[in-house]
Amino acid sequence: MPTASERLRVVLVSPRNPLNIGAAARAMSNFGFLRLRVVNPYEVAFREARSAVGAASVLEAAEEFRSVAEAVADCTLVVGTTAVGRRELQQPLRRLEYGVRLIRRRLAASPVALLFGSEKFGLSNDDLSHCHWLMRIPTRAEHESMNLGQAVAVCLYELVRDGKAESLKPERAKRAAAGDLERVTQLLLEVLEKSGYVNPRTSGSTEEKIRRLVRRLDLTARDAEIWLGMLRQILWKVGQASA
Amino acid sequence: MPTASERLRVVLVSPRNPLNIGAAARAMSNFGFLRLRVVNPYEVAFREARSAVGAASVLEAAEEFRSVAEAVADCTLVVGTTAVGRRELQQPLRRLEYGVRLIRRRLAASPVALLFGSEKFGLSNDDLSHCHWLMRIPTRAEHESMNLGQAVAVCLYELVRDGKAESLKPERAKRAAAGDLERVTQLLLEVLEKSGYVNPRTSGSTEEKIRRLVRRLDLTARDAEIWLGMLRQILWKVGQASA
Repeated sequence: MPTASERLRVVLVSPRNPLNIGAAARAMSNFGFLRLRVVNPYEVAFREARSAVGAASVLEAAEEFRSVAEAVADCTLVVGTTAVGRRELQQPLRRLEYGVRLIRRRLAASPVALLFGSEKFGLSNDDLSHCHWLMRIPTRAEHESMNLGQAVAVCLYELVRDGKAESLKPERAKRAAAGDLERVTQLLLEVLEKSGYVNPRTSGSTEEKIRRLVRRLDLTARDAEIWLGMLRQILWKVGQASA
Repeated sequence: MPTASERLRVVLVSPRNPLNIGAAARAMSNFGFLRLRVVNPYEVAFREARSAVGAASVLEAAEEFRSVAEAVADCTLVVGTTAVGRRELQQPLRRLEYGVRLIRRRLAASPVALLFGSEKFGLSNDDLSHCHWLMRIPTRAEHESMNLGQAVAVCLYELVRDGKAESLKPERAKRAAAGDLERVTQLLLEVLEKSGYVNPRTSGSTEEKIRRLVRRLDLTARDAEIWLGMLRQILWKVGQASA
């Protein structure tokens, strides 16, 4: 049984620039989508891209087709990418965030084709007519059209994006215990007193200020140790100076 | 008052390839982040990138610095991007989905720097020591390192990504009314009968099957009209044939 990512076919239609074909293949390799299809590429570009480094296995396994119809024949869902405003669209247009949810659902069961047009012209109306619906990356109106390799990277990122990771707080380094923080506080206070920073008349409120200040540092256990070492050394030096 | 996107500084540290500088600038322009800073670039590359097309205004306004410290001096949060596993990391490492939430929150009030290292070596340990924490794009372990321009595009996309758009069902074309669908159904049935498709003994259950079949087409009002036109024409031809 192929996995969901094995069911996605990234289809580049009439790509012209070997760097872009290579960049698309690299993004595919980065995000774990390995099935590249190329329709009617500029042959020189395709050959050059194949000899490039970085995503060799994706490019070696790339399949070449003469038409969009052949390239998507085994897919139950065909989605075209487009920058809006370039033409009157005849099909539903979905934002990437929403479209990818539908693609994921379909990928759970059957192959899906994701089409990208040529660098200069995008997908033609004929290419688009093979698509069930269209998808756009939310770029700003003043500069909509993305570089091909970057568009592929952003779409595939959205496919592997983990919504749960958004709210998952990563494990943090072990925090210092209150006892360590209080030792830091007392040492710092001693240094400040010996340095003449603390006004004896207000030393009570100073102690509380310093205690809160130290808590705000949010020290790790390891950093608390380092601070204790530094403060001990400073205290020793300050003591020498006042002797 | 600057907006949140005006408060982000994209900082490229020691970039070497003019195409990558240009690609980073283009992604910035696509997603509406216009403040590019470049630290210690390979001068020829920077000049070449500046003369490139596509994101001219971002590149023209780019600021050049001699050190990371100077490039991030006005920022209250400095975040470095990295592919994991390349070195022993001394700082908290956050996945893009989560890290961007923290960046967005900070951008609401003050400037944030997002650092990208050179194409070949990424950010050095010295560069990383200027960062409050690090962020990684969730690429697969077998091929972690992304192309610079694509990494910039993916990070900026996550910044403009609209979580609500994920569940927002876009407006769909006006659906056909039941009356239209029934007209399509009856015309289709008539065509099927005249063509000899319908077995008179089972025509009752056939009618129900066809009715459900037509509902599953989920036709728009406009497409229903087109179907009616096509079926009327077919019916006329079929009638001729049987006459």
